[in-house]
Amino acid sequence: MSVLVTGAGGFIGQAVVQRLLAAGSRVIAFDRNLSSLPEDVNILRVEGDLTDGVKVAACFEAGAEKFIHLAALPGGAAEQDPISSFKTNVEATTALMHRAADLGGSPRFVFASTIAVLGDPLPEDGVNDATPLRPKMYYGMHKQMAEIALATMSRRGILDGVGVRLPGIVARPSGASGMKSAFMSDVFHALNASQPYEIPVSELAQLWVMSVSQCADNLVKALTIDSSLMPEQRVVTFPAVRVGMAELVEAIASDRGASIASVSYNPDTALEAGFGAHPTLDTSAAEAAGFRHDGGASALVANVFKHMNSV
Amino acid sequence: MSVLVTGAGGFIGQAVVQRLLAAGSRVIAFDRNLSSLPEDVNILRVEGDLTDGVKVAACFEAGAEKFIHLAALPGGAAEQDPISSFKTNVEATTALMHRAADLGGSPRFVFASTIAVLGDPLPEDGVNDATPLRPKMYYGMHKQMAEIALATMSRRGILDGVGVRLPGIVARPSGASGMKSAFMSDVFHALNASQPYEIPVSELAQLWVMSVSQCADNLVKALTIDSSLMPEQRVVTFPAVRVGMAELVEAIASDRGASIASVSYNPDTALEAGFGAHPTLDTSAAEAAGFRHDGGASALVANVFKHMNSV
Repeated sequence: MSVLVTGAGGFIGQAVVQRLLAAGSRVIAFDRNLSSLPEDVNILRVEGDLTDGVKVAACFEAGAEKFIHLAALPGGAAEQDPISSFKTNVEATTALMHRAADLGGSPRFVFASTIAVLGDPLPEDGVNDATPLRPKMYYGMHKQMAEIALATMSRRGILDGVGVRLPGIVARPSGASGMKSAFMSDVFHALNASQPYEIPVSELAQLWVMSVSQCADNLVKALTIDSSLMPEQRVVTFPAVRVGMAELVEAIASDRGASIASVSYNPDTALEAGFGAHPTLDTSAAEAAGFRHDGGASALVANVFKHMNSV
Repeated sequence: MSVLVTGAGGFIGQAVVQRLLAAGSRVIAFDRNLSSLPEDVNILRVEGDLTDGVKVAACFEAGAEKFIHLAALPGGAAEQDPISSFKTNVEATTALMHRAADLGGSPRFVFASTIAVLGDPLPEDGVNDATPLRPKMYYGMHKQMAEIALATMSRRGILDGVGVRLPGIVARPSGASGMKSAFMSDVFHALNASQPYEIPVSELAQLWVMSVSQCADNLVKALTIDSSLMPEQRVVTFPAVRVGMAELVEAIASDRGASIASVSYNPDTALEAGFGAHPTLDTSAAEAAGFRHDGGASALVANVFKHMNSV
């Protein structure tokens, strides 16, 4: 099986490629920069931007049969530049779906969407599979537009779409990533290194998080699940561990044998509203399709450091 | 008040422009061809394609304050060429919304969507404001994507969106229009001229229709309605008259003093499924916002011929 992974050089992409290779798949890795990937005869590399049709065509000439589409302009960057976000997150994404459909045989197409489609404020009494989508950020708006393309092409029977909405995935590498949710990862690095860190949400902030290893497991599973188990709209919200910020800090400190004294809280109103006000989450549809969360705060933290130490 | 009307030279656009002029508005008329519009000092004409940013900019330089966006690549043409449909119905439409938002002050933006967002088959037990959107045609998919842009920008407070889903609007001029629903209009012309016509749906087909004059009244009303009466998603399905094909034929023949003997039925499976299987329609949200249907089959037919004889 040849799987095209877009965004293969990124944080989640690397973990997905690792699993695909371990499972004996051939990977067509596409990203602007693939230097993060290991040398491997089963990786066919195509470096380029998703908006470059010639480079995308090269991925198809290399024999792509199934698809995991991760490449995106992330939330913070999309908010700064909605036109570029549209080009990548809607236009180029929809074009990739059309190309995949043109292969015939309704190939499996896994699309990484985002909980940003839910918008904010989220309903205080909890989110479930029937919660209306009310995005406020351009990132969520554009991802929702792509979800509609995936649903429609699946309905037409030309694409076998599996859309999955990702919560905060941790722990991303430190440094600017264009993601507003970077703090969720940075707190892992700070406590791991016993460095001071000012958390831009309150201790009471409630987050939805998933370890990158759990996320990659789910994405690879999405290639083979029975899509008749998916909702008609072909998209589910990934199960996430819901954890309070203070609880997460304690779980990390406990795992690392570190002190929580190095972290402090200085809530930013916008970040607290956007990432710290996540109510209870019911992801029955995703669980019925076979997707899983990390199991709890401690297990999530353990998964994060196990992954961090393996790369 | 200066109103930019895109698609102003088209069938619905002409009727909208006529009403705006009568109400004392200044109209910035934008379309590829405006030869259908009368000479009038209150019409500022810009001829060009919606995908031509320079021409669109000229509309804004002319002082557009409010917007009625009708220009679209229609359903049949969109199905043949989804890439062109994307460019007009999603990319250029979203870009127009951004430009309008950039004016500041959250201007009113009326967007003509379509019942094609509902998809087919429609639920047999009726459609209401809670019916899930399941488009199957590219036209419906692209219009739904634009609905999301309108909703999100309204939620952000930068645009005052009023989206309206149009049913079959009658009676369009005869001839190729790229619309699969052309038969709904052609039957008016055939019976009016006592010419033979083969109807491509069955006598039992159930249609949702609205006269162009009722449609134009509703679109102009959309410029001034209290948008707090609109649903959060800022889009409603227009009230339509639900009428059986045979009943419509009889109403037209009765109005015209014509014989129904000149029409025959030769149902096309796809057209019957797409346009002839419309269940009962509950448009409470639209009616609460102030939109109206023609009142019944006879009133609709009378409105159609009154309009046809006025232009």
